[in-house]
Amino acid sequence: MSAKQNKVKARQPRGFVDRNAADLRAQESMLRIIRQVYESYGFEPVETPFFEYTDALGKFLPDSDRPNEGVFSLQDDDEEWLSLRYDLTAPLARFVAQNFEDLPKPYRSYRAGYVFRNEKPGPGRFRQFMQFDADIVGAPSVSADAEMAMMMSDTMEALGIAKGQYVVRVNNRKVLDGILDAVGLEGEAARRLTVLRALDKFDRFGVDGVRLLLGKGRLDESGGKGDFTKGAELSEDAIDRILAIFAFADAGSLARIAGVEKSFGGHARVDEGLAELRSIRQYAAEAGYDDSRVLIDPSVVRGLEYYTGPVFEAELLFDVLNEKGQKVQFGSVGGGGRYDGLVARFMSQPVPATGFSIGVSRLMTALKNLGRLAVDETPGPVVVTVMDRDRMADYQRLAAELRKGLNAPGQPLVPVEVFQGNPKQFGKQLQYADRRGSPVVIIQGGDEKAAGEVQIKDLIEGKRLSSEIEDNATWRAARPAQVSVAESDMVARVREILAAQQADKDAENV
Amino acid sequence: MSAKQNKVKARQPRGFVDRNAADLRAQESMLRIIRQVYESYGFEPVETPFFEYTDALGKFLPDSDRPNEGVFSLQDDDEEWLSLRYDLTAPLARFVAQNFEDLPKPYRSYRAGYVFRNEKPGPGRFRQFMQFDADIVGAPSVSADAEMAMMMSDTMEALGIAKGQYVVRVNNRKVLDGILDAVGLEGEAARRLTVLRALDKFDRFGVDGVRLLLGKGRLDESGGKGDFTKGAELSEDAIDRILAIFAFADAGSLARIAGVEKSFGGHARVDEGLAELRSIRQYAAEAGYDDSRVLIDPSVVRGLEYYTGPVFEAELLFDVLNEKGQKVQFGSVGGGGRYDGLVARFMSQPVPATGFSIGVSRLMTALKNLGRLAVDETPGPVVVTVMDRDRMADYQRLAAELRKGLNAPGQPLVPVEVFQGNPKQFGKQLQYADRRGSPVVIIQGGDEKAAGEVQIKDLIEGKRLSSEIEDNATWRAARPAQVSVAESDMVARVREILAAQQADKDAENV
Repeated sequence: MSAKQNKVKARQPRGFVDRNAADLRAQESMLRIIRQVYESYGFEPVETPFFEYTDALGKFLPDSDRPNEGVFSLQDDDEEWLSLRYDLTAPLARFVAQNFEDLPKPYRSYRAGYVFRNEKPGPGRFRQFMQFDADIVGAPSVSADAEMAMMMSDTMEALGIAKGQYVVRVNNRKVLDGILDAVGLEGEAARRLTVLRALDKFDRFGVDGVRLLLGKGRLDESGGKGDFTKGAELSEDAIDRILAIFAFADAGSLARIAGVEKSFGGHARVDEGLAELRSIRQYAAEAGYDDSRVLIDPSVVRGLEYYTGPVFEAELLFDVLNEKGQKVQFGSVGGGGRYDGLVARFMSQPVPATGFSIGVSRLMTALKNLGRLAVDETPGPVVVTVMDRDRMADYQRLAAELRKGLNAPGQPLVPVEVFQGNPKQFGKQLQYADRRGSPVVIIQGGDEKAAGEVQIKDLIEGKRLSSEIEDNATWRAARPAQVSVAESDMVARVREILAAQQADKDAENV
Repeated sequence: MSAKQNKVKARQPRGFVDRNAADLRAQESMLRIIRQVYESYGFEPVETPFFEYTDALGKFLPDSDRPNEGVFSLQDDDEEWLSLRYDLTAPLARFVAQNFEDLPKPYRSYRAGYVFRNEKPGPGRFRQFMQFDADIVGAPSVSADAEMAMMMSDTMEALGIAKGQYVVRVNNRKVLDGILDAVGLEGEAARRLTVLRALDKFDRFGVDGVRLLLGKGRLDESGGKGDFTKGAELSEDAIDRILAIFAFADAGSLARIAGVEKSFGGHARVDEGLAELRSIRQYAAEAGYDDSRVLIDPSVVRGLEYYTGPVFEAELLFDVLNEKGQKVQFGSVGGGGRYDGLVARFMSQPVPATGFSIGVSRLMTALKNLGRLAVDETPGPVVVTVMDRDRMADYQRLAAELRKGLNAPGQPLVPVEVFQGNPKQFGKQLQYADRRGSPVVIIQGGDEKAAGEVQIKDLIEGKRLSSEIEDNATWRAARPAQVSVAESDMVARVREILAAQQADKDAENV
């Protein structure tokens, strides 16, 4: 076996990805904006660990019939099962129950972090992804749900997603529950779940697909696989009644509420749920959030099984191209709802709670599509090149001087580095500087050293000059692209050049 | 079985902890400072996932004799083994190998993130903890190691740890390797490892303990357990020669280098290693880093097995009390070194690299001890209280107005929230506001509503007035602690009160 065959293969496990500097910086600026919105509503940060006891997390993932499906779990050395968190809500419930006496009530908190799903990865579907949640625990009233919906709307607009490009849809699990009772599914837990899952597929399969899933079942002919999904076996009449929730097209919130009332009013759960939705609409209206921001929509389901009341979903309304090149609406970037039973799993008293979760990666993709993602403005480093490898100490001293001289608190950062690769080919050093987007390189050969000087090469002006010659572009007075200065003037001269580069850039942007 | 017995117990798995707002905010401000130092040296962020293929991580943990010991691993559904990262260096090596052609060389990167060790947790010892690493890959010269040591020094000082309160100690694995050759351990991998581990215990067991571990072995009598650790079985003469590396007490870098040369000079590895240490000392000196910042210390080992050249350790020199109430030096908050073989595990060409890692939690503890940890300055929220639960929409509108009116870009954030708990007992709402550190609460009962007014209660002035009465403190002109204003004046008046509170605070701090 050759040495090469012995090598370990460098690859990530399926469904896990690396992230580069531009991506991380854009994400950080996005998270900062979301954090500001959450904090402006009085939420404070809290963090729970990545592992929880498996029983503390519970089994609430959608589409997971087998125990532990969808969750990364392992057995600890004391035989207890641990799982990586699959969302940020179940761990919060554990945290609140554990610290109940010490927390202010209601307890407003937020947290951003990676969660893990042990699922088959696919395009845009990862096994590690980031969520950014906000929750109010100890808030019994539907006014808290209304607040969450409004805060979600504020968050979208703070990120530069304009009114009309998004909508926060609100429904109520009580309404859906009541409808299932009304069509005769009282007490039939399994069929109820089948119905909810079918309704949740509306975006993917349309009304005809959902009709099949509510009836005999649906054969998936995409990809020639022919997987058959068993249906809920409802009667045609029941199916027609249920499908009415998708029939409101351009109707406003109040018309939608009235429509459901007309079909299902008189069932206690439905009436209770609709009254809550009416309150939410009223709270929103009085605070200035009309239907274009917060819309009651009886067709919203939300997959997770722990919701007990209002549920919401932030949806982006502009078109994007899907993998097949078809125009589709961007769709959901987050959602949430009321989960009054989740903290009570740990406690002997009921603890009402509501919250929502933003899918950070999906939202970043959306902002990229809108051209709203912060561009990486971090400048490349000033590079001190190495002409003579025996004088590395000299070059490091020059770099230290520049780093100190060019950086002051409150000013934009100017990175400075010595070239630490193999210095043999000087051209490679300039290629490196170019590659890193350096504004300026410093050169000091033996002659300059003897004269107590350094050369400063202005890479940006250099590029402009050569492109001007090539493109025959409008002439303007040029700075010299390379100057020789006394070492003692180096910092001041580099500062001047950076300022001149910035002025050119500002002038271009006018 | 009662309902209570059915409850899930709310607790974290052993060795995992939750983190509160003050802690997270202090950490964020600490990480921001470290990030600025790293970026000022031209490093850029990169992130790898939490899981790697087990074979990609390799087995380099100290003190782990059994395979997979110390690592959280699980088998994927395709039978491949995955592990959670135990440090940030092994995943970086995988990343660089996988993206080698696309990266600038040398490749300067940094990353902060949690790592996981499946070990027995103890005081200050967690199974999930954060590291903050910086690395240069593709840097063959010892000048890059010198740069890492100097950047570590800059980082300590940027965090407010003064010169003299810390030192970056530098050694070289080549020196240690050469010493082991010199005492006759050439080719004896297992005994060499035993010796290195013994030397690494100097801080815990002192010179007498290390002497035992280099000889017959050591009986651990702490805690009455009586665990016996087998020794390296070296001769008394060899032990004496090796222990000389601890005998330099207050000597400077050059004296330490000369001391090792006197004992072990002439052995090729030792000479090579000492020459590199001399260069590092020279680079540091010329860039203004004297022995009090970057000190050559032949006794530094560093536990991880992938180091191949210079190694460094940032040590804090001030005293703290340990669990037993004894004064001890704070010790190491980070370290690193050259790992020329780690990327080459994946590639058919050698890829030299050097880097270091800061232990974020330990560093935070250190800064807390020094009183240098940023205090949480985030103000409590303005709380809109609820006098009449049928008028929640009113209260939410007031909150929205305040939130908009009090917050402007670039200004410190003023959080505003409606009380979302049970509003029945008004006293509990004021308790809540107090608990959250609210500066101001808004009150609007039926009478105020009818008159188009709100009451504004200044909680901070209120507290000052009552403490003045109690403490008989110096009298000063008081603001009214509660005022009634027209709704249209609410925002302006709250802004005035917040400004007055800030002025009082500033006056106190003069």
